Amino acid sequence: MSVHRIFTPDIHAETGVELVIGGQEAHHAVRVKRVKAGDPLEILDGRGLRAGAVVVATVKEPGERGRPEWVVRVRVERAEVEPPTRPRLHVLACAPKLTRVEDMVDQLSQVGAAAWTPLVTKHTVAPPRAGKMGKLERVAAEAAKQCGRAWVMEVGDPMEFREAIARRALGGGARLVIADPAGAPYRADGSEEIGLLIGPEAGFTEGEVEAARGAGADVCRIGPHLMRVGTAAVVASGIILDAEYARAVGGARGGGT
Amino acid sequence: MSVHRIFTPDIHAETGVELVIGGQEAHHAVRVKRVKAGDPLEILDGRGLRAGAVVVATVKEPGERGRPEWVVRVRVERAEVEPPTRPRLHVLACAPKLTRVEDMVDQLSQVGAAAWTPLVTKHTVAPPRAGKMGKLERVAAEAAKQCGRAWVMEVGDPMEFREAIARRALGGGARLVIADPAGAPYRADGSEEIGLLIGPEAGFTEGEVEAARGAGADVCRIGPHLMRVGTAAVVASGIILDAEYARAVGGARGGGT
Repeated sequence: MSVHRIFTPDIHAETGVELVIGGQEAHHAVRVKRVKAGDPLEILDGRGLRAGAVVVATVKEPGERGRPEWVVRVRVERAEVEPPTRPRLHVLACAPKLTRVEDMVDQLSQVGAAAWTPLVTKHTVAPPRAGKMGKLERVAAEAAKQCGRAWVMEVGDPMEFREAIARRALGGGARLVIADPAGAPYRADGSEEIGLLIGPEAGFTEGEVEAARGAGADVCRIGPHLMRVGTAAVVASGIILDAEYARAVGGARGGGT
Repeated sequence: MSVHRIFTPDIHAETGVELVIGGQEAHHAVRVKRVKAGDPLEILDGRGLRAGAVVVATVKEPGERGRPEWVVRVRVERAEVEPPTRPRLHVLACAPKLTRVEDMVDQLSQVGAAAWTPLVTKHTVAPPRAGKMGKLERVAAEAAKQCGRAWVMEVGDPMEFREAIARRALGGGARLVIADPAGAPYRADGSEEIGLLIGPEAGFTEGEVEAARGAGADVCRIGPHLMRVGTAAVVASGIILDAEYARAVGGARGGGT
């Protein structure tokens, strides 16, 4: 049985301090996970913090509007800030429809993308509404908590294709990759930052692919098969992170010599 | 706008013949897709057939119990049988819970797995009930239809771990791969048949990993991050198929020299 995790942004944890955790996370820990005094906990803030803590007490205290709410008092036993994952993979992908966008954000978080920005291209049906973005941030945070990641995937605002290929959301030195069936297989090169462009169901236009190529992007075919956009974004991210990981640990991936 | 696809198992299509398509596929084509005489159609049987056809007529005919039902009469203009995808990737993965198993079957189909068998290991919570398997077969067929695949992913019956590593469901010469965090990156080797073992949320036991190794399996860590089982199975499948594809087309994948 793994240690229960608490996800709480905006917390400052140092070894030896006592923290008070309230809100939904405290309620869930006490009422669903049956956390009690003496139990170990892991505390994540989504920005690198990973703290080991022990529950001192679970108590009901007056919350907003005077209604009693559960709080969990913990003592921090060790706290460290992990560096972000490298390479930093920023996925610029058109949003699929309906609940599929939530599934995509959940899976991109699991696979280890650092950020997702909804991409707006010629054939994009509709980017997510502004009111949807908060929900998608919660989906990303929940996935990070479940998988025990110290960093939560960032969810960006919708971005036009020409801004994306101008690297507006990326470091100037980022490698840019555009997924297109006419491309070659992805080849790891040790880049620290990678921007991955994934088109809508109807694909990129030829003009878009050429504009990306003109902006220095590598045109890559991701795997032998066509997939729906959500699955394609997740599988492409997995392939890129695995290829870079394999390169970093020195294992050959097959292919070439 | 892509051509509407009809998925109909057990059909015999030859150039020049006329076929009568009924049931849900005909109803959907006429009532939802507004297919009419003269429209082109693509017909898939899920076992390699890909036929181009033209609608001759859409008519209502008495169906079961005398109720009128839509049928679509088509003339086959060309018919070919595509060979199955190589490598044949057979995924032996523990089933995630609830609707996640449907999402996994849908995505495994998209990514291009040839077959999925629910794996039963020491820590497997519960394999899907027999009543669920028909539904999962329909999910696989629908994904193949959407992605225009000539072959539908097979959905097998639950299998015990020791039967899986004895290659009961695999060709004798199949390469066996077990996903485990302690493994090395996947390395493409041009295998024609690959069996991929994916454990439950709680992972394989050390004994299971050793038994697989003893049976000749390669222990592979798929990517740098831990994922939930459904996502792990899909991403691992994508990585393996992409690595083999890259090897087949001669592109280096990075890593090694």
